[in-house]
Amino acid sequence: MDEMSKTSRRAFLRGSAAVAAGTAAGTVSAQTPDPAITELQDWASYLGAGVDETPYGLPISFESDVIRRNVEWLTASPISSINFTPIHALEGTITPQGCAFERHHSGAIELHKDDYRLMINGLVERPLVFTYEDLERLPRENHVYFCECAANTGMEWAGAQLNGVQFTHGMIHNMEYTGVPLRTLLKEAGADISLDKWVYVEGADASSNGRSIPMEKALDDVLVAFKANGEALRMEHGYPVRLVVPGWEGNLWVKWLRRIEITDRAVESREETSKYTDVYEDGVARKWTWVMDAKSVITSPSPQMPITHGAGPMVISGLAWSGHGQITRVDVSKDGGITWETARLGKQGDTKALTRFYLDTEWDGAPMLLQARAMDDTGYVQPTKEQLREQRGENAVYHNNCIQTWYVDVEGKAENVEVS
Amino acid sequence: MDEMSKTSRRAFLRGSAAVAAGTAAGTVSAQTPDPAITELQDWASYLGAGVDETPYGLPISFESDVIRRNVEWLTASPISSINFTPIHALEGTITPQGCAFERHHSGAIELHKDDYRLMINGLVERPLVFTYEDLERLPRENHVYFCECAANTGMEWAGAQLNGVQFTHGMIHNMEYTGVPLRTLLKEAGADISLDKWVYVEGADASSNGRSIPMEKALDDVLVAFKANGEALRMEHGYPVRLVVPGWEGNLWVKWLRRIEITDRAVESREETSKYTDVYEDGVARKWTWVMDAKSVITSPSPQMPITHGAGPMVISGLAWSGHGQITRVDVSKDGGITWETARLGKQGDTKALTRFYLDTEWDGAPMLLQARAMDDTGYVQPTKEQLREQRGENAVYHNNCIQTWYVDVEGKAENVEVS
Repeated sequence: MDEMSKTSRRAFLRGSAAVAAGTAAGTVSAQTPDPAITELQDWASYLGAGVDETPYGLPISFESDVIRRNVEWLTASPISSINFTPIHALEGTITPQGCAFERHHSGAIELHKDDYRLMINGLVERPLVFTYEDLERLPRENHVYFCECAANTGMEWAGAQLNGVQFTHGMIHNMEYTGVPLRTLLKEAGADISLDKWVYVEGADASSNGRSIPMEKALDDVLVAFKANGEALRMEHGYPVRLVVPGWEGNLWVKWLRRIEITDRAVESREETSKYTDVYEDGVARKWTWVMDAKSVITSPSPQMPITHGAGPMVISGLAWSGHGQITRVDVSKDGGITWETARLGKQGDTKALTRFYLDTEWDGAPMLLQARAMDDTGYVQPTKEQLREQRGENAVYHNNCIQTWYVDVEGKAENVEVS
Repeated sequence: MDEMSKTSRRAFLRGSAAVAAGTAAGTVSAQTPDPAITELQDWASYLGAGVDETPYGLPISFESDVIRRNVEWLTASPISSINFTPIHALEGTITPQGCAFERHHSGAIELHKDDYRLMINGLVERPLVFTYEDLERLPRENHVYFCECAANTGMEWAGAQLNGVQFTHGMIHNMEYTGVPLRTLLKEAGADISLDKWVYVEGADASSNGRSIPMEKALDDVLVAFKANGEALRMEHGYPVRLVVPGWEGNLWVKWLRRIEITDRAVESREETSKYTDVYEDGVARKWTWVMDAKSVITSPSPQMPITHGAGPMVISGLAWSGHGQITRVDVSKDGGITWETARLGKQGDTKALTRFYLDTEWDGAPMLLQARAMDDTGYVQPTKEQLREQRGENAVYHNNCIQTWYVDVEGKAENVEVS
């Protein structure tokens, strides 16, 4: 179906009607009990592994393909690159740290808690250096937030590029963070918190990855975090301390956080001028594009998760999120955006966190052009790629939150396509 | 302080007043910047690990003590034993699967998804056998729930036994589960769902661990679950499918679930007669004690997490939960239950899930008898050990949800004690 990689909804409908005519809907294929089945039940004939064998457990060997994957041609070196969360194989909303995507600018460093220091300087009454233990003595909070790289789905601006939701949308994870509100540290140092001031943050790694945050956000919900999903941050996520900037692009979530400087203007660092801006057709840069707009994607079926059971009952499942707040509704289309059905949302999540959606449906065995479209509590509706290109032009790299399309063929195989 | 292992609040107060007189409250000890610090910041002088090095990541080596631990003298063999979640070192509410406690009756078995079968029989119109794929085709839900072993804190009935919250309260974990409601499977099979009927569930391991569940609960919130914290269940937690019975004792959460039988009375299996009942003083057994009552415990400071920073600002942090619903309030006492302060709750969690609480306070450097007391939305208040012993006698093994006491000495070391 290579010719589908750019096709029209009209042509798709002509084709699918012809196939559907020959296919009947089925039911879940649970069988009546067969005595032969008992032969398989031999796990009761041996004793299993004891509680002393796995002080820290790993996934069972059968799940060894559920891992982060990088794309080798994407960058010159893995120390300045990205890998991808296997979102095609995950369910619910929490991302385990072990398979949550990584993005490094100069590799993941090994920094012991005892050596950790965090300096606050600049426009403060009292420049301070905090140890890790100092941070643990301050009032802390825990919240679930998503972290999305600004470049997530970026390769899709040019068309349907990568055949797998792990690669098109896997620069995202969603964890429960524990940390001290940044505003608490600003207060401890007697920072000038006038709303025209900025907070410059940098990491202890070679890249330093410095970014400027406007004071209003710094005083709102930013956390200086030291735990994720209950346990210490992993080395690759900034152990022992990273910044959590809810709803804002991942590049601001500085890892191995070492310095916070209060300034009277944005630093305009390398990371916010040479990158993380969107260049319009006329060459003007769209700047300070921090917030990740509402977005959704179907994770199953998807190119890595074909339908294997034939026609009949099935669940279409996916993820939705918004950097502006909560997801209020997700619609799913099977015909490339002509008709839509409202999906069922999993439990109402925290604000700026992943929401799981489900469409419990019947597959008639005909091809589908699957799409999901998210709405958030600001009233914003996730745009089509055409709409986004009209606004942003063709030069964009970052902040692609457009509707994604999977073409599902009569065998249940799914492919990344673009419809017009 | 061995003599404190059983002491009175009155004696404690006499002692602590004397010490407190000599100690002044401090502040968080963040320092003004010292040029020498920059010498430590050498992580910027090398390149770190690349994104191709950890397809599935593990905790950093510095955190290698944050692991499940078993108590060797507790059982004859590790294949029929327990290990403990390191709750002293965790924060927030989510438990990573890798360090979530295990309890096996005949060891953890290795059962491939392709070999998995789930039978429903007994009082049904259509006995059925489901494959793993069949389950994935049915509407599913995701919820965070705690799972607590009925024996959690059981060794403490007799007095202050184990010096560490990991060992006294670590038979608990809290994960986000994805699964199919049990009621959906009952409907598929045309089960008799009259409220006087029972659902008998058993696992594929050698113990089979059969348990009877009353129909009312089976129709309520029980899940046939296949994911935890987003990814597949770990082998030791029942891969590929386990039962999730929210708020009820962990023994009912049958792992490697292989059979569901609808019966007209409870089976009275080995697991619900020889064990998991509470024997009163007069020899009568308290039976069908499924629900885990409201409970809380301070995780830091605790014997494994002493105060190391001296007097001044500090956070007292812990966990609270109730099998009946939501935690509405947690109080903390520093004097063994004479006076109480209301703690700050972390984000309001799901029902039947762990809630994190914090008391942001000042330590004056004097000894403390730390306690936490939880309340839930039924109005229930967590009892003292005296109150619980009055109700249940001295023979009990299971369902100890009493208030726990840590004695903190002037050096900040904490010890498991009992007050009267």
